[in-house]
Amino acid sequence: MTKSSLQIARAAYQPKLPKALKGAVVAKMGEATQSVADQEAIQKLFPNTYGMPLIQFVEGEAKEFAPMNVGVILSGGQAPGGHNVISGLFDGIKKLNPANKLYGFILGPGGLVDHNYKELTADIIDEYRNTGGFDIIGSGRTKLEKEDQFEKGYEILKELGIKALVIIGGDDSNTNACVLAEYYAAKNYGIQVIGCPKTIDGDLKNDMIETSFGFDTACKTYSEVIGNIERDCNSARKYWHFIKLMGRSASHIALECALQTQPNVCIISEEVEAKNMSLDDVVTYIAQVVADRAADGNNFGTVLIPEGLIEFIPAMKRLIAELNDFLAANGEEFNAIPANEQRAYIISKLSAENSAIYASLPEGVARQLSLDRDPHGNVQVSLIETEKLLSEMVGKKLAAWKKEGKYNGKFSAQHHFFGYEGRCAAPSNFDADYCYSLGYTASMLIANGKTGYMSSVRNTTAPAAEWIAGGVPITMMMNMERRHGEMKPVIQKALVKLDGAPFKAFAAQRAAWAKETAYVYPGPIQYFGPTEVCDEPTKTLQLEQAK
Amino acid sequence: MTKSSLQIARAAYQPKLPKALKGAVVAKMGEATQSVADQEAIQKLFPNTYGMPLIQFVEGEAKEFAPMNVGVILSGGQAPGGHNVISGLFDGIKKLNPANKLYGFILGPGGLVDHNYKELTADIIDEYRNTGGFDIIGSGRTKLEKEDQFEKGYEILKELGIKALVIIGGDDSNTNACVLAEYYAAKNYGIQVIGCPKTIDGDLKNDMIETSFGFDTACKTYSEVIGNIERDCNSARKYWHFIKLMGRSASHIALECALQTQPNVCIISEEVEAKNMSLDDVVTYIAQVVADRAADGNNFGTVLIPEGLIEFIPAMKRLIAELNDFLAANGEEFNAIPANEQRAYIISKLSAENSAIYASLPEGVARQLSLDRDPHGNVQVSLIETEKLLSEMVGKKLAAWKKEGKYNGKFSAQHHFFGYEGRCAAPSNFDADYCYSLGYTASMLIANGKTGYMSSVRNTTAPAAEWIAGGVPITMMMNMERRHGEMKPVIQKALVKLDGAPFKAFAAQRAAWAKETAYVYPGPIQYFGPTEVCDEPTKTLQLEQAK
Repeated sequence: MTKSSLQIARAAYQPKLPKALKGAVVAKMGEATQSVADQEAIQKLFPNTYGMPLIQFVEGEAKEFAPMNVGVILSGGQAPGGHNVISGLFDGIKKLNPANKLYGFILGPGGLVDHNYKELTADIIDEYRNTGGFDIIGSGRTKLEKEDQFEKGYEILKELGIKALVIIGGDDSNTNACVLAEYYAAKNYGIQVIGCPKTIDGDLKNDMIETSFGFDTACKTYSEVIGNIERDCNSARKYWHFIKLMGRSASHIALECALQTQPNVCIISEEVEAKNMSLDDVVTYIAQVVADRAADGNNFGTVLIPEGLIEFIPAMKRLIAELNDFLAANGEEFNAIPANEQRAYIISKLSAENSAIYASLPEGVARQLSLDRDPHGNVQVSLIETEKLLSEMVGKKLAAWKKEGKYNGKFSAQHHFFGYEGRCAAPSNFDADYCYSLGYTASMLIANGKTGYMSSVRNTTAPAAEWIAGGVPITMMMNMERRHGEMKPVIQKALVKLDGAPFKAFAAQRAAWAKETAYVYPGPIQYFGPTEVCDEPTKTLQLEQAK
Repeated sequence: MTKSSLQIARAAYQPKLPKALKGAVVAKMGEATQSVADQEAIQKLFPNTYGMPLIQFVEGEAKEFAPMNVGVILSGGQAPGGHNVISGLFDGIKKLNPANKLYGFILGPGGLVDHNYKELTADIIDEYRNTGGFDIIGSGRTKLEKEDQFEKGYEILKELGIKALVIIGGDDSNTNACVLAEYYAAKNYGIQVIGCPKTIDGDLKNDMIETSFGFDTACKTYSEVIGNIERDCNSARKYWHFIKLMGRSASHIALECALQTQPNVCIISEEVEAKNMSLDDVVTYIAQVVADRAADGNNFGTVLIPEGLIEFIPAMKRLIAELNDFLAANGEEFNAIPANEQRAYIISKLSAENSAIYASLPEGVARQLSLDRDPHGNVQVSLIETEKLLSEMVGKKLAAWKKEGKYNGKFSAQHHFFGYEGRCAAPSNFDADYCYSLGYTASMLIANGKTGYMSSVRNTTAPAAEWIAGGVPITMMMNMERRHGEMKPVIQKALVKLDGAPFKAFAAQRAAWAKETAYVYPGPIQYFGPTEVCDEPTKTLQLEQAK
């Protein structure tokens, strides 16, 4: 296998561990816990795994452990550092007892159900240390939520003598990990289930989970290319760059990238929703920044847009809902209408409010909303090129303002979408250390017989030696939410808090960033060199943890 | 000004110089030179600057130099390292005599004509050392080719007491630098003009200019994100990523990125043209790779496409030419036709060959070809989203093959275009050193009274200390070419040579890369750390210079 010189050099990196994990450890139990809401309902659903205490690992006496086998699953979208969770887990169980074995289930939770697995030996692990991607065993999106899946899984776990399963995933996967932990506990199958917090989106966090892994590296990679584009923008001085950033359900990535690169505009979906902004409000806001900069002779700029924006605009949500209902009921009639009359037909049929919004949309987006539907007949919002939609509407508004004499500049746009560019980057030192520590901590939770816990590493803006490792009962993070029409116990998704320090820092500076050209150029992630360059945590973490 | 920690740390980097430039230098003259072709015609056009000898700088005795002022211009598209050319030039002239001054003309050659300039003092230079972008003075695309521009320039040069002008640009800008050198020499204005080889496209190179600056950093930045996408591709195992790379007139960038990342497919425009391949040939080639991988159960892959591909497909060139002519003559009639009949109308009017090709194009591209025209009525080829065009046509072909039972896989595509992401990246050590050396060398050419030379630094795969610095008469690189209907003296553009070592290395491995998943992950550019990671030249240079 050909490797780049960086791959070869980086393989030798020894991730930093919290001091408490370096030798033998003992689990210090905290108080019993409660779920964040709906305590009674959650307790009823999780009689065996509810209310367990918080755990912190501290230095302890060396102890002997009987040999055991452990399984591991990567679930959902890729995030930098997944391989380090697995190598930390591997090193942890090998330290407990060199006879311990690690099995990886192939291509996600489906591998457990379909009995598709391989043993992860030292040779294999060494190939993947400090690398990006999930390719060591692959990932998948199968949801583990049905009893027959749990039973199929149990078959193979029993066959392989697996005592504990580690599920590396986002909020849904960790919810399901807890359901599985509860099921196996209720059945007395003797199999523990431990979760690990993964997602570049950064929306799996709370008091005990400071950040999900991958967020650091992904945001730094996006910020690198955003910074490069800003520098280009500021050199050529003739384009507005509209940059969409991955992250459907929360704007943490856009916010972090804005804090790192100081663009002229960054839209935060959560704010748009809270302020009940319309699409036209968002367009007007951007157009005003463009016009103000043009008045200073600056016909260039950079705009960051979170991928999920459309679904956070209340009026767009209502339009999409009516369109879904209308086309479900009248699909046949709609399909019989000649293509060039479909737009007028829809405008004539929708309620006044939604009809006006639909009529205001650029042709391409209107067509996408009425034609590109998923197998359930729903609009595929993810296909909407929000960056182009916004730049087109901004251009239209500026043209109108020009006629009114309110704007006198040039507006030319370039478009970018960054997502796949960062999900599999080689983990930054932070993610390499954090992931390795999460995996290592998982092995200690297993050794201590725990189930239904998420591996937790805290105090992450301090040097790694001072990080605090332990476990958090997954039920502690849960509440009841309506999903597909049913009330379900789920881990609360962490959206951007408008009263949180990161958003407040952004909001305090954005007017200056809009007007001035205050770009910051983070450059590429560095793995060697000064610690202030290589080991800096995200701005989000720094602001959240600033005392 | 807020700066990232990398910006701060990187500012302290001291670029490496060739050993010969470290102390006092003397110019060693080589033999008289000839232009690469059309010697008689070029000599006639450049009586004062033709046939000059090659120059190499070697260690010499310290000498005193009278104070002088120097001007500098950034011309054309951004390339990483431009600021280091300027800081090398600055340090060079200050070493000659601390009283020397450097003036920068603002926003490209237009700054010279419009007398828009600023003095570049030590404070300003220090702010920009080792940074990406051209924002120190901005760049522009005004072409210096008319006498009145030369005279307007002379006015300000005389006023500022400028003895020499350094023009940092691509092949056209350097051609114009030579025309200007010849003009000022013929007029006895006493102003020297020196060129510096810039372009990320890599198409300004020859025996004496081993590479243009910026190519190294830009290709490494693109290869970083391509490698990340490959890793994602290989983890999720469900998408084909079609990645278009900047570079209109040559495929050096695509080729270099392919050598660095080993994708499943990379199209090289020069090969497509040489083999007289049709669009359908290109589509069939990609579809066959997709089908072969699908037969192995691999429904994923990565395809690299050079931006200029369409214009290298002989049949597409003919179609575009006929379309341009036809619509120029029949524009009014065409515009009167209802939108949904325009396609059929064009199909009915073109010659049989072109009509068939037009009919085979996806709707969106066909519309772009007939509607989106520049002010001269010509098709805007650069607006064509070649990456989407190819994936759509590949998808169609695969669907046909599926019906015929020749293909049984899943095909789902993602699209990317990388250009602005790399043009302003902070220069790699190679580009930081190379650019600084080019600028420093320019100061020595000036000190030695030279004009019509390009700054040249060779032996660039050796450590920087062993690099060979000197000057090449620009006329030596010229030939006569037809441009806009007129024969003009121009620097020969270097396209990818199909018998060159880089292409041959690629061609020898691509069948294996297509079938296997042999991805290499270069990762982000490193500025600190082991030399084999930080100082590696491009694969192109390594292969070209391998003995």
